[in-house]
Amino acid sequence: MTDSAKAGTTGAVADPAAASASATGDGPTDPTGTPRRDLSAILRPRSVAVIGASDRAGTIGAEITRNLVLQGFRGPVFPVRPNSRSVQSILAYGDVREIPGPVDLAIVVVRKELVRSVVEACAEKGVRGVVVITAGFKETGPEGLAEERELAAICRAHGMALVGPNCLGVVTTDPDTRLDATFAPTFPPAGNVAVASQSGALGVAMLDYARELNIGVSDFVSMGNKADVSGNDLIAWWADDPRTRVILLYLESFGNPQRFASLAREVARHKPIVAVKSGRSRRGNLAASSHTGSLAGAEVAVEALVEETGIIRVDTVEELFDMAAFLAHQPVPRGRRVGILTNAGGPGILATDAAEAWGLQVPDLPDSLRRELATFLPAAASLRNPVDMIASATPDDFRRATTLMLGCDELDAVIVLFVPPIITNPAEVGEAIAAAAAGSDKPVISCFMGRHGVPEGLTTLQAAHIPSYAFPESAVRVLARAARYGEHQRRDPGTVPDLPDLDLAAACRIIDQAPEGWLGTARVGELLDALGIHGPGGGVARSAGEAAELARALGFPVVLKLVSDTISHKSDVGGVKVDLRNETDVFEAWEQIRAALAERGRAEAMQGVLVQPMVSGGVECLVGVSRDPVYGPLLAFGLGGVHVELLKDVRFRIPPLTDRAAAELVRSVAGFPLLDGYRGAPKADVAALEQLLIRVGALAAACPELVEMDLNPVIALPVGKGVVAVDARVRVAHPASPPRAT
Amino acid sequence: MTDSAKAGTTGAVADPAAASASATGDGPTDPTGTPRRDLSAILRPRSVAVIGASDRAGTIGAEITRNLVLQGFRGPVFPVRPNSRSVQSILAYGDVREIPGPVDLAIVVVRKELVRSVVEACAEKGVRGVVVITAGFKETGPEGLAEERELAAICRAHGMALVGPNCLGVVTTDPDTRLDATFAPTFPPAGNVAVASQSGALGVAMLDYARELNIGVSDFVSMGNKADVSGNDLIAWWADDPRTRVILLYLESFGNPQRFASLAREVARHKPIVAVKSGRSRRGNLAASSHTGSLAGAEVAVEALVEETGIIRVDTVEELFDMAAFLAHQPVPRGRRVGILTNAGGPGILATDAAEAWGLQVPDLPDSLRRELATFLPAAASLRNPVDMIASATPDDFRRATTLMLGCDELDAVIVLFVPPIITNPAEVGEAIAAAAAGSDKPVISCFMGRHGVPEGLTTLQAAHIPSYAFPESAVRVLARAARYGEHQRRDPGTVPDLPDLDLAAACRIIDQAPEGWLGTARVGELLDALGIHGPGGGVARSAGEAAELARALGFPVVLKLVSDTISHKSDVGGVKVDLRNETDVFEAWEQIRAALAERGRAEAMQGVLVQPMVSGGVECLVGVSRDPVYGPLLAFGLGGVHVELLKDVRFRIPPLTDRAAAELVRSVAGFPLLDGYRGAPKADVAALEQLLIRVGALAAACPELVEMDLNPVIALPVGKGVVAVDARVRVAHPASPPRAT
Repeated sequence: MTDSAKAGTTGAVADPAAASASATGDGPTDPTGTPRRDLSAILRPRSVAVIGASDRAGTIGAEITRNLVLQGFRGPVFPVRPNSRSVQSILAYGDVREIPGPVDLAIVVVRKELVRSVVEACAEKGVRGVVVITAGFKETGPEGLAEERELAAICRAHGMALVGPNCLGVVTTDPDTRLDATFAPTFPPAGNVAVASQSGALGVAMLDYARELNIGVSDFVSMGNKADVSGNDLIAWWADDPRTRVILLYLESFGNPQRFASLAREVARHKPIVAVKSGRSRRGNLAASSHTGSLAGAEVAVEALVEETGIIRVDTVEELFDMAAFLAHQPVPRGRRVGILTNAGGPGILATDAAEAWGLQVPDLPDSLRRELATFLPAAASLRNPVDMIASATPDDFRRATTLMLGCDELDAVIVLFVPPIITNPAEVGEAIAAAAAGSDKPVISCFMGRHGVPEGLTTLQAAHIPSYAFPESAVRVLARAARYGEHQRRDPGTVPDLPDLDLAAACRIIDQAPEGWLGTARVGELLDALGIHGPGGGVARSAGEAAELARALGFPVVLKLVSDTISHKSDVGGVKVDLRNETDVFEAWEQIRAALAERGRAEAMQGVLVQPMVSGGVECLVGVSRDPVYGPLLAFGLGGVHVELLKDVRFRIPPLTDRAAAELVRSVAGFPLLDGYRGAPKADVAALEQLLIRVGALAAACPELVEMDLNPVIALPVGKGVVAVDARVRVAHPASPPRAT
Repeated sequence: MTDSAKAGTTGAVADPAAASASATGDGPTDPTGTPRRDLSAILRPRSVAVIGASDRAGTIGAEITRNLVLQGFRGPVFPVRPNSRSVQSILAYGDVREIPGPVDLAIVVVRKELVRSVVEACAEKGVRGVVVITAGFKETGPEGLAEERELAAICRAHGMALVGPNCLGVVTTDPDTRLDATFAPTFPPAGNVAVASQSGALGVAMLDYARELNIGVSDFVSMGNKADVSGNDLIAWWADDPRTRVILLYLESFGNPQRFASLAREVARHKPIVAVKSGRSRRGNLAASSHTGSLAGAEVAVEALVEETGIIRVDTVEELFDMAAFLAHQPVPRGRRVGILTNAGGPGILATDAAEAWGLQVPDLPDSLRRELATFLPAAASLRNPVDMIASATPDDFRRATTLMLGCDELDAVIVLFVPPIITNPAEVGEAIAAAAAGSDKPVISCFMGRHGVPEGLTTLQAAHIPSYAFPESAVRVLARAARYGEHQRRDPGTVPDLPDLDLAAACRIIDQAPEGWLGTARVGELLDALGIHGPGGGVARSAGEAAELARALGFPVVLKLVSDTISHKSDVGGVKVDLRNETDVFEAWEQIRAALAERGRAEAMQGVLVQPMVSGGVECLVGVSRDPVYGPLLAFGLGGVHVELLKDVRFRIPPLTDRAAAELVRSVAGFPLLDGYRGAPKADVAALEQLLIRVGALAAACPELVEMDLNPVIALPVGKGVVAVDARVRVAHPASPPRAT
């Protein structure tokens, strides 16, 4: 408490240039070119006021004041508490406006009724950032939400960044700042892992894990209700923060998924973003929305977002920190080939099982390497991968074997497993592994089994920044996720190509000008034309005779489909007749459609029929667009029939699609071999299918008024023959009537 | 060391009656009626010799002697070491035969070269059980395997039970025995969890985890190479052991899977068996077999075994102990409906997500319960499930809410999540939960988030035997597995019904009398007849004219299939022609088959054709039998075509099938709705399909010489019309030539 107490006597001066840049938006931009929020007042303040500071132990106001001083904040702490001369031996002020000199950051812990006036006082004082700990806003209902919005508006009007309300506070371990403005009992060790949590409770747990596992933290922000500063703002800030190498997120909702997608995609190319996104189940969503008032997240959209951006999604907070322990210091592996080194068979098998399950490769070792290992390992050792040195392995054996495996061109990473036998000293084994790893640019990850051996061995490993886990499976899972992340980093994202016959402006015009609801048959045809998507051809007939004539002209067999502006699900009313082989068939089909409608009392709905040549051969596919109220448009692809409906073999992407994304999407369904010449069938025109996906994706991205689109079936013909959209349904909604969730 | 040292001066007397019962096999039986191995010499010895005992710290002989004395073995310990007056201050003997009085158990830690003579000396002395720690046997190759078999033969000839070789030793916490005959550094707390490990290294780790997590162990056995005492012997012993409530296994191989299946099925109905079976990946199998010399385990067979027996299979050693912590004291839940109680939103969401992912239900709470909760919880609390009492929840709130939720008829279990806020005392919350749980017969499971809060809270919970986990997901996973186990316990296993037209003796006779290899067409027909399985009918024609005549008699369309004793894959040689609509088609088809064979130079292989009516409509299925060299016969079921080949939608069972198992098998494939009237199609005759599975299963179980059988396709016709096995292939192998792996 000495340094900070001394520092506390000198006032901090905010940089007026930085403040004005933040206010006018002329400041730095994030990796997507959007102006970056200046969070320096929150994360690098030079003076802090605690409004609602207290002497009474066990209150939040007391805990925060105590933490600020105890952890040695490098500027003055100003307690604000009416009618108190001092708080925790520091001169107290009755009002933030009475504080002499500038205040960068105000921590607000007053009763909810007082928050608004306190924030207004901060604005008047010229405070640059506010963290509102107080709860009772959005999470309590519509009234609280309105009050929260007012708070955010006041802050925005005065250029103050606002974290919270309803949060645990913020931390930075930056040695020039050292801020612990939380009421959590733990201050984390300093390091390069930035942490943001949407749950205060999990924030407390996360600070504990960081301390327990000795994972160094750069900054920590409990985001609370995210009235102003969002996860996106934090990602953009940490993207440029030289102290931060890894970004960890616990999220219950995405504020702005579109911005998250573009931002995370750019940032993840250079800095890993690891996230737990909870609320993935239907019921969990309910709980999430009751908790934070956020809209329900669609799990499918989140998965697409993850695939798209290259963020590392994990399932649990435990896995979040497992990942951080690795990424904080180890290089990302350049491939999936892993060498496993062990002094006991069982753990080696467990690691190998897990490696195969997680998509890592455990290749045979080259003969030259096996020969070198054989020079010092006993005859009973197993030299295939995993290398089992058996229980007699010495620290020196670990060092030599690790060095040799790291030097092997056919391995991208090494996992070292150690079970302490009675003789070998875990600490010495730790030193040996660290020594071997020191010279390598490949990752080394370890597992010291048996808890009694862990602490001793870990100390050495931690000093060398080699992560160690209690179970082989955890080590493997971490490495597999890092390898997948590395592939994403290296992957060419592709480009959205310019396609011939794609008139996006015309397509959007058709949607914009269409009435609300399902698009009529003719309009659908025009839309597909504008997109450069081929239908089966054919034309509309207004009578049975016209239909027969058209059919003869097209050539048999043909298909008849009801034309009606008022009926969209044609097959549900018996409005589709296929495989009509002659004129008699056509006359009969017309009559059946008419009779079916008449039976429903909808005879007048029949405006005619579409006569199309019957497409035969090829593989049936489905291409769809839906629009989630939170996540925006999603493009779906699957094979037709039972593949999508029964077997759920369908995949999603966020449009627009690059050439690369389209190619991946087609190949990502389990049924893809059916398109690829399965059992001697001709290969389908996958290139044309990819083009169709890109065309539909371009429209979905460009035209928010398109809320639903189904091309079903799309027939993928053999190579060179293209694809045919046999049937299409399109639904339009205009902004005045917000789109329903689909 | 006081008690045991004193006890060490009195000799132990083995019970001659028990010994003779064991030798003659007149003793107790296991739950399947097989004589149960008497393991009392291993796990309840009254005197122990350590052959190879040592004074030199760090040697195995010293560690074991020390552990025996330190942990207070309740009988005399006799060190055996030539030319030493004493070992660790205990009178030493030069040879086991020199020890005065009976020796129940000998621990052998001598050099490998001496093991055989030492074991012979033990036999001569009348020792009843031997644990061979020494390594260098089966795991080193064929020579070691031969030596190991000799050891086992010596032991068997003298009625000595043998554990090992190549193992860590054995432990019992029985207060009348207190045996620590291992060189592991940790003695576990006493309790009701029995542990067997096939890996010594993981055994060390497991004893550590037990101590660390305070999970009480009854007995621990490191099985090593399992030359004599197997996992099955241990399961049978623990099934009758009143001190054991839960059985934990770490397995790399099943010695005798058939016995394991019948034994585990019986035992698991009363005592949970939790197992990690490693070596599940192809590569992991390689490592497992290099390690223990065991045969590769077929993952598919293991899955079927697990499904069949109701053992709880977990993925990691961590999960093994997570399960044990629950099962050791909590009741198995009576259903899947779980109430979640929390004082923080985030963990509640995580738990809910995990619950849905693991197949638990998180139902809405009844209004009456919500009203009762509302009487003492604040307005901001969320009363739907999860119940979020928010951070202000007091210990008394935890007690009242837990009590109310446990009392709710619509919940089967309660998960309590606690994040320590600054004011509430975790220990008091622990006491409150324990108090609420005390009066209930439903399970309570908890998660105290944030490591700093855990130890304090845990002490209280541990005293009350309420398991607590560091992460909500772990608690959910444990509860979900327990619920599934409960369902298995309660499930009616069904019976293998007597079916009409099933002449198993005749079917087996056909197989027994058949020559090695693929069964000829006529024989296959007879076999199906004996099983009461309908083929499509039809007959064999020796000429094109005969074929046409037969076809006319059967009615068109028909199918022609090559008849040949030398060609089994008829379709591969163009030997199958379908949808022949008239006599001309039949003549042409005959000619095409003939020409295709001639082209291959195999014209003489054509003995005629099978002419069958073409079966139309119905749903194509596949029924198969394969025989794994280790696991024995497996029955496979799936839908035809891409469902099995591409989408891997196929499931396996171990024959014979009960009516219940057949019904489950049909319904376990993802494509089942296609049999159940999908999209208005007629429902298939599922009852007939189940009968067919039972018939095939009966043959597979009764007739080991049937090594492969494929009914593909089996057409399931609409309800009441039965099923037709359109094509069948059967392969026979006689014992002289062991069946190949299929």
